[in-house]
Amino acid sequence: MKLVTFSTPTPHGDIQRVGALHGDNVIDLNYGLVALLEDQGETERAQAVADVYIPSDMQQFLMGGQLSMSKAKDALHYVQARYDGTQAISTSKDQCMVFALSEVALLAPVTQPTSIRDTISFETHAKNFEKRTGKPIPELWYQQPLYYKGNTHTVQGNNAVIPWPRYTEKLDYELEFGIYIGKTGTNIPVEKAKEYIAAYTIFNDISARDVLQQEVTMLLGPAKGKDMDGGNIMGPCMVTPDELDPSNLSMVAKINGEVWSQGNTSDMYWSFEQIIAHVSQSETLHPGDFIGSGTIAFGCGDELERWIQPGDVIELEVEGIGVLRTIVGERN
Amino acid sequence: MKLVTFSTPTPHGDIQRVGALHGDNVIDLNYGLVALLEDQGETERAQAVADVYIPSDMQQFLMGGQLSMSKAKDALHYVQARYDGTQAISTSKDQCMVFALSEVALLAPVTQPTSIRDTISFETHAKNFEKRTGKPIPELWYQQPLYYKGNTHTVQGNNAVIPWPRYTEKLDYELEFGIYIGKTGTNIPVEKAKEYIAAYTIFNDISARDVLQQEVTMLLGPAKGKDMDGGNIMGPCMVTPDELDPSNLSMVAKINGEVWSQGNTSDMYWSFEQIIAHVSQSETLHPGDFIGSGTIAFGCGDELERWIQPGDVIELEVEGIGVLRTIVGERN
Repeated sequence: MKLVTFSTPTPHGDIQRVGALHGDNVIDLNYGLVALLEDQGETERAQAVADVYIPSDMQQFLMGGQLSMSKAKDALHYVQARYDGTQAISTSKDQCMVFALSEVALLAPVTQPTSIRDTISFETHAKNFEKRTGKPIPELWYQQPLYYKGNTHTVQGNNAVIPWPRYTEKLDYELEFGIYIGKTGTNIPVEKAKEYIAAYTIFNDISARDVLQQEVTMLLGPAKGKDMDGGNIMGPCMVTPDELDPSNLSMVAKINGEVWSQGNTSDMYWSFEQIIAHVSQSETLHPGDFIGSGTIAFGCGDELERWIQPGDVIELEVEGIGVLRTIVGERN
Repeated sequence: MKLVTFSTPTPHGDIQRVGALHGDNVIDLNYGLVALLEDQGETERAQAVADVYIPSDMQQFLMGGQLSMSKAKDALHYVQARYDGTQAISTSKDQCMVFALSEVALLAPVTQPTSIRDTISFETHAKNFEKRTGKPIPELWYQQPLYYKGNTHTVQGNNAVIPWPRYTEKLDYELEFGIYIGKTGTNIPVEKAKEYIAAYTIFNDISARDVLQQEVTMLLGPAKGKDMDGGNIMGPCMVTPDELDPSNLSMVAKINGEVWSQGNTSDMYWSFEQIIAHVSQSETLHPGDFIGSGTIAFGCGDELERWIQPGDVIELEVEGIGVLRTIVGERN
């Protein structure tokens, strides 16, 4: 499944729901399950049961584990079998089961992850460390997948505007992809780690490069250089592992339609399974935690010495996931 | 007020509540407000109204801002005026308004902060940076209050056991204090920053010193070195700014009753107001965010070359706040 958090405008404000992509449409999984249950004769409690399995918040949905995931698949298949591509279909209470993509907004798949960790798993990007510090890449990089933690309040989805932070001259994109954790675990062995991956998404890790390069000299890691409002951009959907082999996917970043960065997930030195095993040592992972791959080789303006400007459109594409589009905001 | 999150054992499991310290007792602020409202003739809706102002989760309580804070004060004064120090008092529904401290557990004041940031605001501790890196303290340290972000899932309160992480030989305490943010804000000027401080608490920032010193060489900041389960210890209470001047408070760390570290909050180079102004640049602060002072001079074993061991009892005392007690767990 390509799962999404989408919102639709209503006279009661925007309403946020969990869905799955189906061609140019979004299928509402909760209403799909309601219709399926009604069809099975569960008329009185259909909505209440559907709300337990498929709540309207993706992090809460992930808390439901395989049980919720399997009900979502049932709902998706049920609606797919009944939708002819043209005729609107609804539950008995006139709840719309299929929306056109053009009439919804795609928020980040998990609007506020329970945590954000970002690694440096592509070796060439790590080697460019040398450029920044004048020292070779630390030996430790080859021994463990190192990472920093991001600000979970700064997440946006597809087609969002990234406000230009008041303190930077050098705003930058980073071409990454990442995973959401799907179940709670501690001390997870690498050979079991795949079970903990709920889905993959695209990640644009916005950086204030000038500020970042200064502040990390104190050895406390990224802060203002990464944590600006709106700076952690994820989406447009999240793809479940049964539908995506993450080992060989092309990755492209375009600025205003021009290719600036390209690479392949096969260049990752550290796998997400190895990262999960490392992070979870004496530290519990939770459903809704996000972990990023780090930037691909030359996957940001800093490595290209090219800089995005207000009004630019950034498109990050990862094969099998989609395109994550971001508009660069004006300077204040 | 000295606000606490406390829990009491019941046949239905531990129940968690918001209270205020009063001598050797904890006053339940929600039940106190219920009783006050009942006394004012609000018999039907007393509980519903009290739940809106004083929910049982401190972060939700902080979301209520000055309105919730002022109702909490009313409730506290109401119960204080009626409690004679011996006779139990209850609401009309037999809800206990006063508990003995000895019969409750004091959890972290905010059991899961919306974020954790920790600065290095004491200059001598920052200067010890030189020992670790062989380089002098970066000039930038004097220009802005630098910080790292912690794992919000690893918070514990008073009398908790810190499990010894499987990957370290050198577990360490850090003697700090910190603030909780009380209202939402962005680009907060330093002269208005005080309004955003909801309360002060004591902070024991547990570190795996050997692991930390290695991993920070990649410039991504603390990760496994700080993020172990149970490693962010806060409490025993949080004191509102109207009852605490944070500018001149003695701070002491004792291990098994012996003084290892001592200092004074007056040695802070960066004030919390300056820190709030820096952090909130183009980045929104939220009620329930925690910000730490960083360690005082020689406020950790690393600077003393002395190391805590399994079974040790750590007591951090900050004048006007109290004593935060932690037990060091066994190696696995």
